[in-house]
Amino acid sequence: MEILKTKSLMQEWARAKKKNSKTISFVPTMGYLHQGHISLLEKGKPLCDELVLSIFVNPSQFGPNEDLDAYPTDMENDLRLAEAAGVTAVFLPQKQDIYPQDYQTRISLDSLPHHLCGKCRPVHFGGVATVVTKLFNIVMPDVAIFGKKDYQQFQIIRRMTLDLDFDIEILGGEIVREPDGLAMSSRNAYLTADQRESALSLSRSVRKAAQAVARGEKNPGVIQTEITAFIQSFPQTSIDYISFCDPATLEPVKIIDKQILVALAVRVGKTRLIDNLLIDPPR
Amino acid sequence: MEILKTKSLMQEWARAKKKNSKTISFVPTMGYLHQGHISLLEKGKPLCDELVLSIFVNPSQFGPNEDLDAYPTDMENDLRLAEAAGVTAVFLPQKQDIYPQDYQTRISLDSLPHHLCGKCRPVHFGGVATVVTKLFNIVMPDVAIFGKKDYQQFQIIRRMTLDLDFDIEILGGEIVREPDGLAMSSRNAYLTADQRESALSLSRSVRKAAQAVARGEKNPGVIQTEITAFIQSFPQTSIDYISFCDPATLEPVKIIDKQILVALAVRVGKTRLIDNLLIDPPR
Repeated sequence: MEILKTKSLMQEWARAKKKNSKTISFVPTMGYLHQGHISLLEKGKPLCDELVLSIFVNPSQFGPNEDLDAYPTDMENDLRLAEAAGVTAVFLPQKQDIYPQDYQTRISLDSLPHHLCGKCRPVHFGGVATVVTKLFNIVMPDVAIFGKKDYQQFQIIRRMTLDLDFDIEILGGEIVREPDGLAMSSRNAYLTADQRESALSLSRSVRKAAQAVARGEKNPGVIQTEITAFIQSFPQTSIDYISFCDPATLEPVKIIDKQILVALAVRVGKTRLIDNLLIDPPR
Repeated sequence: MEILKTKSLMQEWARAKKKNSKTISFVPTMGYLHQGHISLLEKGKPLCDELVLSIFVNPSQFGPNEDLDAYPTDMENDLRLAEAAGVTAVFLPQKQDIYPQDYQTRISLDSLPHHLCGKCRPVHFGGVATVVTKLFNIVMPDVAIFGKKDYQQFQIIRRMTLDLDFDIEILGGEIVREPDGLAMSSRNAYLTADQRESALSLSRSVRKAAQAVARGEKNPGVIQTEITAFIQSFPQTSIDYISFCDPATLEPVKIIDKQILVALAVRVGKTRLIDNLLIDPPR
């Protein structure tokens, strides 16, 4: 497993692989790897000759009051997990290499970033789209895999890749959950034992939504009211949003008559957690 | 010479060339080719195995009151000139292929687009940066060549290529002029015989600026006053801007003590023309 610490080394590595007709799978992350990341690596491993993992806590996707400086890190463990997952190159760039002093180019999308998490994280998805564009040009992958826990991010990357004509296949990895249902997240490390209990309200809420749809409920407002009360019954919770929306456009739906995405963000203490589920109405 | 009319055909062609370790030079244009374009093709030809010309009148770089629909075209002549210049593939996409209905991704730069032509063409350079990003991903060039008549565009593309880490070398082609000094432009076709005379005020102005600097003038304001009066002495002229600026940042300079760019835009009748010159102070 090669460890490449500058973008010129990474790009040189990728260029050499391409010249030898090697294909590249790519999993970009912010590190502090958990089973969710590992599942993305496992998905990418058999698809291409090479498997690249990047670890970069991207400052441009954090707002001024977010947890950039506190973001958890465990490089030693990350590298051990990467090696075990068959990663052939790890890209570990420095911030000043990715964003030099006179950097000034940004990617934006007209509508997808303005739904769901974009409402309370206004700079987030522009920062994600920009760094992913850069990473695509540095790593030169044939396939890139993104977790569907960040469903909005996954759709934004898909749309951007299509819009900018990147010759890259974007794949989504299913949410990996703890045995009790909590969606895996590096930010779960912030939770106290009590908060860990309250955090279960997210996965249970999306399950509740699926049950309501299964029993024939077509009105998202009814389900939203139910879930809101449910989440509020857990200590230290504060709801950012609960959305029932079109899975492709992320526009809210008024009636559940085809597949929908239920997505929510809840603060548990100071930790902001998200979860989502694609739900089909009964036939 | 292959003629490729869809982005999937173009991308397939490029992918096949790359797989065979062929290198690609690329000259993106809006067509109606003149000697300026040809000089870019001639510059690109010896550098790589393949030479790609794109012809696409990009709607996203035209403002609402600009000449998108009137932009001159002569495809038959363009293809003849391309073939003669050794082009190996021409990319001729349709608008709906480049911007499908649900298209929503844009590239922007923080400062470079706000100087010079950006002041009266607020959407222009975002449109240029976006379409060039797309063309880079479709054509997959190793080298791309842009004319320095659009000096601001050249700097924006250079900056964007660097910022987004495209593995592409950006080269600039020198301005090609008519025997009397007029910078070649597809828009020169709009000029009447009288306007053609007035259009000479641009090239003569940048020469005048160079002469003033050569004789020791360090104050851009003094030269600007002289040039303004000079241009106004020609019928049907209206000055958009005259700028003495840093060639890299395009920020106006207050004193000419190192290399500067003098750049100007002048409307002659309804036709907006530009010209520029890099000027070094005497040693």
